Amino acid sequence: MKKNLIYVQSGGVSSVINVSAAGVIEAAREHPTKIDRIYAAAYGIKGLLNEEMYDITDEPQDKIDEMKHAPGGIFGSCRHRMSSPKKDDREYRRLLALFKAHNIGYFLYNGGGGSMDAANKIADYCGRHHLALCCIGVPKTIDNDLAHMDNCPGYGSVAKFTAVSTLEAGQDIAAMFSSSTKVLLMEVMGRHAGWIAAAAGLARQHAKAPPHLIIFPEIPLNKMELLDKIREHVGRIGYCVVIVAEGARGADGDYLSADRGKFGGTELGGAASVLAVLIKQLLGYKYHCVVADYLQRSARHLSSQVDCDHAYAVGKAAVAYALQGKRSVMPSIVRISSSPYRWRTEPVALNQVANSERFLPAHYIGEDKYTISEAAREHILPLIQGEAHPPYKDGLPLVARRGFRRAAKKLPDWQQIS
Amino acid sequence: MKKNLIYVQSGGVSSVINVSAAGVIEAAREHPTKIDRIYAAAYGIKGLLNEEMYDITDEPQDKIDEMKHAPGGIFGSCRHRMSSPKKDDREYRRLLALFKAHNIGYFLYNGGGGSMDAANKIADYCGRHHLALCCIGVPKTIDNDLAHMDNCPGYGSVAKFTAVSTLEAGQDIAAMFSSSTKVLLMEVMGRHAGWIAAAAGLARQHAKAPPHLIIFPEIPLNKMELLDKIREHVGRIGYCVVIVAEGARGADGDYLSADRGKFGGTELGGAASVLAVLIKQLLGYKYHCVVADYLQRSARHLSSQVDCDHAYAVGKAAVAYALQGKRSVMPSIVRISSSPYRWRTEPVALNQVANSERFLPAHYIGEDKYTISEAAREHILPLIQGEAHPPYKDGLPLVARRGFRRAAKKLPDWQQIS
Repeated sequence: MKKNLIYVQSGGVSSVINVSAAGVIEAAREHPTKIDRIYAAAYGIKGLLNEEMYDITDEPQDKIDEMKHAPGGIFGSCRHRMSSPKKDDREYRRLLALFKAHNIGYFLYNGGGGSMDAANKIADYCGRHHLALCCIGVPKTIDNDLAHMDNCPGYGSVAKFTAVSTLEAGQDIAAMFSSSTKVLLMEVMGRHAGWIAAAAGLARQHAKAPPHLIIFPEIPLNKMELLDKIREHVGRIGYCVVIVAEGARGADGDYLSADRGKFGGTELGGAASVLAVLIKQLLGYKYHCVVADYLQRSARHLSSQVDCDHAYAVGKAAVAYALQGKRSVMPSIVRISSSPYRWRTEPVALNQVANSERFLPAHYIGEDKYTISEAAREHILPLIQGEAHPPYKDGLPLVARRGFRRAAKKLPDWQQIS
Repeated sequence: MKKNLIYVQSGGVSSVINVSAAGVIEAAREHPTKIDRIYAAAYGIKGLLNEEMYDITDEPQDKIDEMKHAPGGIFGSCRHRMSSPKKDDREYRRLLALFKAHNIGYFLYNGGGGSMDAANKIADYCGRHHLALCCIGVPKTIDNDLAHMDNCPGYGSVAKFTAVSTLEAGQDIAAMFSSSTKVLLMEVMGRHAGWIAAAAGLARQHAKAPPHLIIFPEIPLNKMELLDKIREHVGRIGYCVVIVAEGARGADGDYLSADRGKFGGTELGGAASVLAVLIKQLLGYKYHCVVADYLQRSARHLSSQVDCDHAYAVGKAAVAYALQGKRSVMPSIVRISSSPYRWRTEPVALNQVANSERFLPAHYIGEDKYTISEAAREHILPLIQGEAHPPYKDGLPLVARRGFRRAAKKLPDWQQIS
């Protein structure tokens, strides 16, 4: 009997999450005898709870092709943490009813560790309630912190953006330092794991080249030591490029950024500016400060081809697993070799990756604590290969068409919880 | 009699200043019967005063080709304001001696308004001291604020970076706003003129699209009005993208940024974070904050082809003017038509552009004060056309080779003034 498929985007988006969406849609459309309608949730799981779904089964192929070049989340994403069904099962009951009402047999959840945990709980709940749901994860996180993955779709592109930006800005300060800017600080994402910060290290193609110092969230920062090192670099090379992860912490364990906000405990950003003030006050150097923020994860114009290939492959593999009747799994990217870079996808159980957090391995950090090791370079460099230039129109990347057909609602209205 | 040529980079670099350098070098090498040696100053006019020069006459062509893809200033630049020769002519005397010692007949100065003023003074001084020096400006400024120019080399590329970044980051927040970030602030360069901020407006391809609000340095900001408008946009569209020029000022005329530093009076940066705090405290919205800083002016990977063409053309024209015996002029870019975009270079006297500052015309700003007009769009859009992708190697833009031959010194050592 034919079943319908629902695809849901979750959490912070990446520049290639829509490549995964296209992978899912194209793979699903190859199996019209097994998959009837292909739905996508509008604005993630919260939209799905509201029964807000697009029916993308019959979208023209050129619109799907456009998705492959679109940053952001083409169907909308959301940040939402589902409670444990033991504590409060209302959302699970709602989803169960929705899956039944819409004859959903395949639930594909595109997100990071938290989303894989949610997908796993949804699968368990549906299983306990006798719904034969193939619940498949589609991995995505720029943070690259999912366990049981060689690397995560989204990471290769943010790594490429970070390395290219460091390389380019490094050439700028190299031209200016003799009379002007001595220190360039660049803050990159990464609350707990230093993968993005590490990628900046790829720009260092010889000993004197930027970045000179990388501040990883995994290593508590000795601020006095950092200032000494900056002074040493300025003295020796004339300038210093410092990459700082947003989640960098002081020796006291507190975030450098004191700006505490409301989502997920701590709204980061500000680590670089905290250091900038110290550099100015204590060393007296003129500085510049870059906060790439959303630019790094939305820069589809600079996505790596390898990352696009990964993102597409996990979307496609997720559909294949679903059609094989697999449940509660996710396609993982497994590296076969680094040089040449060869890889494949293989299923990994959702409960193995749920809420996982994979930090930068200790041997990826140089002995000086402020650089990446050769092992890190060998690991990350393959992931930034290839330029997946989007098509341009009138000087700007072509914007993918939105405007998808809404699927008719079949359930009573839903009152969002919290 | 054959003379030598010296080329000098000045002020903040752009992603295409080295394209101008290549234009100068290639044009000069076409005239070996008139131009003997081709020199470039190491680190700008301060390096030149120290008699630090490279002899690039015999550099292989592939090294010159690499320059065309290199951000930063390939020979090094500097920030230095020469005093009036009436007040203190020591630097002028030094340059005169240097020009004579090295048989310099052509002085090509690649910079903005301040540099054109310096070039003009140097030309006058040398003229008064009977040195037949063809002193030619090569215009360059990302700020786009030189008078008597349709647009300045460097601007088209920073405009493209800003528009593309706004477009991409706008698609990111469009996917996230339903449950997370409501306001995205992006700070761009522009102390006095809003040209870069205006370029962000090109990303707005329909009425609801970002950017929703642009804060120009030309318009004193009413902060309460801004907060009201942000609230209105969040209410109506769900989110709001705000572009803020670093030089944005409050109604009191003070920079939003209170961070006052040491170079040129005021070290900017921080306008966006000042607004972010207000947005959070008064409206309670989750925000993200981008400070593109050096990324915008070093992003050679995203330079516009039109801008590269401009940059090359002014380098080439400067040499032509020099060989025609013109003195104290600069090639200006003159627009013939916008659609299709057609342009030419023509000489303009240095004293007409010296220290000029060209603000965004009032009719380029929308009636609401926070958008660009159709006239601005028509003016700026042609400048971001074409993708001048650099060559990539191993996932990163190919880094141009440095390492130029030093010209032998002929003068006594020089003690820098101030």
